[in-house]
Amino acid sequence: MDYKIDTGLVAEHNAKLQGDLDADYAALGGMLARRGQDIEQITTLAQTFAVALPSWGVGTGGTRFARFPGLGEPRNVQEKLDDCAVINQLTRATPAVSLHFPWDKPSDPSALRAQAAALGLHFDLVNSNTFQDQAGQAHTYKFGSLTANGAAAREQAVAHNIDCIELGRALGSKGLTVWVGDGANFPGQSNLRGALERYLDSMKSIYKALPDDWQVFIEHKLFEPAFYATTIADWGTSFACATELGPKAKCLVDLGHHAPNTNIEMIVARLAQFGKLGGFHFNDSKYGDDDLDSGSINPFQLFLVFNELADAAQREGAAFKPSYMLDQSHNVTDPIESLMSSASEVQRAFVQSALVNRLELAAHQESNDVLPAAQALKRAFRTDVSAILAMARARSGGAIDPVACYRTAGYRAKAAVARPAKAGASGSGIV
Amino acid sequence: MDYKIDTGLVAEHNAKLQGDLDADYAALGGMLARRGQDIEQITTLAQTFAVALPSWGVGTGGTRFARFPGLGEPRNVQEKLDDCAVINQLTRATPAVSLHFPWDKPSDPSALRAQAAALGLHFDLVNSNTFQDQAGQAHTYKFGSLTANGAAAREQAVAHNIDCIELGRALGSKGLTVWVGDGANFPGQSNLRGALERYLDSMKSIYKALPDDWQVFIEHKLFEPAFYATTIADWGTSFACATELGPKAKCLVDLGHHAPNTNIEMIVARLAQFGKLGGFHFNDSKYGDDDLDSGSINPFQLFLVFNELADAAQREGAAFKPSYMLDQSHNVTDPIESLMSSASEVQRAFVQSALVNRLELAAHQESNDVLPAAQALKRAFRTDVSAILAMARARSGGAIDPVACYRTAGYRAKAAVARPAKAGASGSGIV
Amino acid sequence: MDYKIDTGLVAEHNAKLQGDLDADYAALGGMLARRGQDIEQITTLAQTFAVALPSWGVGTGGTRFARFPGLGEPRNVQEKLDDCAVINQLTRATPAVSLHFPWDKPSDPSALRAQAAALGLHFDLVNSNTFQDQAGQAHTYKFGSLTANGAAAREQAVAHNIDCIELGRALGSKGLTVWVGDGANFPGQSNLRGALERYLDSMKSIYKALPDDWQVFIEHKLFEPAFYATTIADWGTSFACATELGPKAKCLVDLGHHAPNTNIEMIVARLAQFGKLGGFHFNDSKYGDDDLDSGSINPFQLFLVFNELADAAQREGAAFKPSYMLDQSHNVTDPIESLMSSASEVQRAFVQSALVNRLELAAHQESNDVLPAAQALKRAFRTDVSAILAMARARSGGAIDPVACYRTAGYRAKAAVARPAKAGASGSGIV
Amino acid sequence: MDYKIDTGLVAEHNAKLQGDLDADYAALGGMLARRGQDIEQITTLAQTFAVALPSWGVGTGGTRFARFPGLGEPRNVQEKLDDCAVINQLTRATPAVSLHFPWDKPSDPSALRAQAAALGLHFDLVNSNTFQDQAGQAHTYKFGSLTANGAAAREQAVAHNIDCIELGRALGSKGLTVWVGDGANFPGQSNLRGALERYLDSMKSIYKALPDDWQVFIEHKLFEPAFYATTIADWGTSFACATELGPKAKCLVDLGHHAPNTNIEMIVARLAQFGKLGGFHFNDSKYGDDDLDSGSINPFQLFLVFNELADAAQREGAAFKPSYMLDQSHNVTDPIESLMSSASEVQRAFVQSALVNRLELAAHQESNDVLPAAQALKRAFRTDVSAILAMARARSGGAIDPVACYRTAGYRAKAAVARPAKAGASGSGIV
Repeated sequence: MDYKIDTGLVAEHNAKLQGDLDADYAALGGMLARRGQDIEQITTLAQTFAVALPSWGVGTGGTRFARFPGLGEPRNVQEKLDDCAVINQLTRATPAVSLHFPWDKPSDPSALRAQAAALGLHFDLVNSNTFQDQAGQAHTYKFGSLTANGAAAREQAVAHNIDCIELGRALGSKGLTVWVGDGANFPGQSNLRGALERYLDSMKSIYKALPDDWQVFIEHKLFEPAFYATTIADWGTSFACATELGPKAKCLVDLGHHAPNTNIEMIVARLAQFGKLGGFHFNDSKYGDDDLDSGSINPFQLFLVFNELADAAQREGAAFKPSYMLDQSHNVTDPIESLMSSASEVQRAFVQSALVNRLELAAHQESNDVLPAAQALKRAFRTDVSAILAMARARSGGAIDPVACYRTAGYRAKAAVARPAKAGASGSGIV
Repeated sequence: MDYKIDTGLVAEHNAKLQGDLDADYAALGGMLARRGQDIEQITTLAQTFAVALPSWGVGTGGTRFARFPGLGEPRNVQEKLDDCAVINQLTRATPAVSLHFPWDKPSDPSALRAQAAALGLHFDLVNSNTFQDQAGQAHTYKFGSLTANGAAAREQAVAHNIDCIELGRALGSKGLTVWVGDGANFPGQSNLRGALERYLDSMKSIYKALPDDWQVFIEHKLFEPAFYATTIADWGTSFACATELGPKAKCLVDLGHHAPNTNIEMIVARLAQFGKLGGFHFNDSKYGDDDLDSGSINPFQLFLVFNELADAAQREGAAFKPSYMLDQSHNVTDPIESLMSSASEVQRAFVQSALVNRLELAAHQESNDVLPAAQALKRAFRTDVSAILAMARARSGGAIDPVACYRTAGYRAKAAVARPAKAGASGSGIV
Repeated sequence: MDYKIDTGLVAEHNAKLQGDLDADYAALGGMLARRGQDIEQITTLAQTFAVALPSWGVGTGGTRFARFPGLGEPRNVQEKLDDCAVINQLTRATPAVSLHFPWDKPSDPSALRAQAAALGLHFDLVNSNTFQDQAGQAHTYKFGSLTANGAAAREQAVAHNIDCIELGRALGSKGLTVWVGDGANFPGQSNLRGALERYLDSMKSIYKALPDDWQVFIEHKLFEPAFYATTIADWGTSFACATELGPKAKCLVDLGHHAPNTNIEMIVARLAQFGKLGGFHFNDSKYGDDDLDSGSINPFQLFLVFNELADAAQREGAAFKPSYMLDQSHNVTDPIESLMSSASEVQRAFVQSALVNRLELAAHQESNDVLPAAQALKRAFRTDVSAILAMARARSGGAIDPVACYRTAGYRAKAAVARPAKAGASGSGIV
Repeated sequence: MDYKIDTGLVAEHNAKLQGDLDADYAALGGMLARRGQDIEQITTLAQTFAVALPSWGVGTGGTRFARFPGLGEPRNVQEKLDDCAVINQLTRATPAVSLHFPWDKPSDPSALRAQAAALGLHFDLVNSNTFQDQAGQAHTYKFGSLTANGAAAREQAVAHNIDCIELGRALGSKGLTVWVGDGANFPGQSNLRGALERYLDSMKSIYKALPDDWQVFIEHKLFEPAFYATTIADWGTSFACATELGPKAKCLVDLGHHAPNTNIEMIVARLAQFGKLGGFHFNDSKYGDDDLDSGSINPFQLFLVFNELADAAQREGAAFKPSYMLDQSHNVTDPIESLMSSASEVQRAFVQSALVNRLELAAHQESNDVLPAAQALKRAFRTDVSAILAMARARSGGAIDPVACYRTAGYRAKAAVARPAKAGASGSGIV
């Protein structure tokens, strides 16, 4: 494997921490044993966890007010893959990358696929982009893409999505995520029903182009960039459209795309029940689509989402395989560090959800014994499974403390030299 | 007709105001004519408008902290009908009453039906109640009704709903609205998916009991009385359930039952598009299910809802007939006055939406000329159609100014004498 | 001490669990030692924690839709004290009770004080009630109390608050919490500025009646029972009023009384900075003033509040002594169990906040090293301090597992016999 | 005056519409007279209304996802002034321009002042910018500006604000608006209290540099660009800071900068009561800081804000002079058209608020007669004052229908030729 960080350095890092980890792991194992749980089973399960990386996540994000670039940002898809490889090398939880076209469009798809394979990576869902105009584009998306009033813009957007499928096929992907920013900033700007009719028409054309073993994922979002009405604003619309399109169409849940106070774990339960839960974009938020690091604001909510996933997995068995991806905007941290840390937070929720004694929980629910039912979840959530996560990484060949190891390796400093910053101000000037 | 207010008094009231109304009407007619619109057509349309009254709305409402009763509150369903009759006599916009069982359960349904007919009223949708325990009830709904873990409570709730259908049939109703408060106050209290599965099972039994010409309406609500998770929390769940149940099942939209910032008019458009828009509970809100008077907080939103209804009516034709009901809690006003005024506000939005030039609007939308499209709606909304509403009332036999006429008639003072208040504090003590 | 649960039974309960607890405690102690922290110091600190109980919290709560009573609910203030005594006996974290007048008005204050002392309890802040009308009350609060337009209602409300102070003085309290539901349900109902002017006038009269060693706490709330505008709606208003009143006036923060998405821990930081942080009503919420069990919905937020309190304590020293009270509505659980469990959750956040290495945190902040700064908090929050809490209870004479011990003792079953339920339906009928 | 649109063309435009306007005006005058109101008084008042234009508002806005430029966008501050002049020429309601530095930094301030004067414009508040890094800037604002941990960044930000004052002085401004995006994206990133202490220190330095006849306005905002905690997040913080700084410091209310469900008009009332209402940034929003056109989403809220301003004006007299500015992002409309239309919407709310019979309103409030009190506001809001606004414009020399006149003049098409677009994609690539 073409490891980006010296494996000797990782081994040395682990060697220093192994003693304390063993002690913590034994202490936790004892606690779990006293509750009747086997830490080894949990650790083995933890090692199976994987969440995809978004190619765009390794660059520094920003807002309409400004972007403050970091050092050594990747300048092309090849460098993005390098960064993703570091994350997976150290966490062993992120073997797949989700590309975004045209941002990451390779001139030579098979070369890119080979690079990924050499890095121990493969390609997950591909993402289309019809929320921006590209240089030289024939028809603007200013007033919509898949929902545009003008047939030419719609057809262009459909064709781009079909191109993404073709490209994804060449790269080994099995699905397409469609997010459109289409909507309206004014009451009256758009016929709300007409826009969804056009959306469905466009999506039917895309759906037809799906290979047999592909799926298409509809991503909803309450607002931004449209500020009065977004065509695919909520899970209800996403679900109705996925139903209308057919079995290959599913719904994708981004944790930051909901109205305030929404019970997101219940949406997960609903979509699972009705067979339309396609996957997730993980992040956290306090106000809107803040794209903050997963679990940084409301870790209990992330746990509750995984509690529903554990319930669905128990009901559906191996057939239940939603896609997981991190989708965050790293404005004030090193993106590689945030992605390593976030992969671990999502994995943490996955592991904690496995600690829930589902039989006991069901019994309390059945007898309407509310407090013990609630505490069955809280007890699992409260368990500090850090030692399990670290042991899982170590056993899979990763780093016990990925961020510390990465810092020791000096990867960012080397990238800063190899990838010099472009001149220019950080102000976006878009307000 | 068994008018509750002397018709001579109404005539006298109108006579005093007719001169000014005629002048205002002529002035408005001129303005509309200069825009190419015929006021007479609009007034004729206004006269067709009707919104049902909820029987519980004529009593004073309250909160968990307190209820501050008014004078002369109706003590039984017969007195409630009397109050409803006054509202319809003066507004000519509320000929139907929606009953709530067991609160309004008549010992003699045919006598109640006869009373209603004599008052010029008929019965709209009936409402079941499984969110409270009634004295002597065999199984509590503390932990759920249609979704309860216990089969006995579920069956009791189903049987009650079927009783409501029977009763409604005897009263001439054609539909049942089902709202359940079922849900959970703690994560873990309830299996979210299991609860909805039980709900669907229960609803299927109720659905089977529907007469051929009946419909059942599913009402969703984000929260209260359940404060962590509500089984039917959003339109997506309502829609999925109505779809699963069949063509007689539709969704009911209460304007106050949504997450903050939700675009409600878009939900209306979605349900209309997918053939599941059953009806409305009209009210207004600023924070939660505040049950404030319709149009008192955000009148433009009410207009935008009717704008979608006008769009749907144009597309669907006469087949498009959603149910309209006021659903408000009158805590600080005379309920009769609030209901008269609110009926007029909903009628106002209906009339304003008829002023939208839909051809012109569509043309602006088609050409992405956003500002004129937005202004086409704003112009209709801004039009002060008070004179049209008053003229429609006067021509239909109602009062030009219903609240003023009602005050002049001294109806409340007489009710205060005829219906003496029960002793006791106003504090509910439920906190 | 007049223990309500046999101390032998508690000892027996503890004896069974002590072995596992010792093992868990040793395991956790080892983990903390490897991080450089001394578990004994933390446990000693945990033993100092106290949060007051609200007298009304030991009864079952409800909503405007219904109240579903539990068995053996306390029927008077004496029985409420008995229930509070059980909670403190088992948790050793709730030695104070906060009374509410007139609900808990004793005929003989000194007898009540003696009962409390015998039970190992004392009285914390007293609470006035001008959000309900009491039987025989001269002037209604339907349209306001301290802000009422009518001078008579205002004076009555002021007099009641002064009575509360007198009563509190006799009971050994040192402060008065003033919450008013005053506000408006309609734009125009109230002159927003006039209402606050009258509030300040009323509060000045109450302030004057404060004994030298008393404080008055202003509690704000966004909405409910007023649904358009609440006179004391936010911390800004509370702060401005407390500033205007003088040094004995402080602000009280109820975690459920804020607009969606509000950063509550920042409000805590602001009030601490400006010297006006009086105290807390602890609970949790997802939608509005849901009054759910503390830490049941967003435990990280509770931790972040205590992180600010730890920061303030470090800055202000011993002078920094905000009041802590639980304020929850227990609709589906045994109130005693919920209060025991919630006291423990608040104590947990307090203990976790003590695990934050504030020097390390400050260093990361100073160097803008964001991720390690964030992780310093997350690491403390993640630590499962359950063994510390249990050990603190055991060492202070309480139960290792309060809920289990309480269930074993059969307290509720005995109360159900001793305190038979009143007849009558559970439906509040207030909608 | 250096009019940008031929005055003959405006006259011709008006001549065509004058007949219909006269008829509408007479019709409305009659309606108002029948209510006891004199249209001429209102029109005269309308002519006094003015709201400032933000220099940045005449360019097309965007989001972090994309910016879709329009044709003929102004390329420098001189061209921005030209566009502003057109808006004021046609609306006669926007004689002042608010500049933003360094975006609009003139090389020759006196030349710019002369240009403005020739165009009939003057300069309102100036705005500083420390939310972006500028090319060549010594210290980054990535981790804060006025609140930065590093003294060098703080001093740089203070110095920039003092430069803005100097520049504003040269341009004839009398005030500085300070908005900082400073805050944190992670719990722990920043010491919440420390950040505000540093803010206050920085602001004290800026305050000291204010000329005697200047004011400084503190603008708060809930979130964006900071997504966990914003240092100046709410009116409470803004108020506490303005109080600490002194009498020249006031609070500025941007309508889109509040938590969901916030009652903004009550904040206006509070700030007016406590003497700290400095001014407004007008816009509308549905979700966050959407910066939509004023009155396009919730026109009744805008009216209610002006209702509070009318109340304050009645209480305070001529001394009450808050600053008004439009602050919108025009993403899908011609910015000039949106600004003309929005100026008119704000003016509309001002005029409608003048129609409220404040004596009658106070009487209803005093007697707790809620419904008529509410209707006194609704009646004023419902009044379609379009004819008054058009007549005020015509009498002041503007256009009866500014947007139509502007379109007839072909200003944008000419600008598109004179100001060719820069090459390049519209995608911001900041996500």
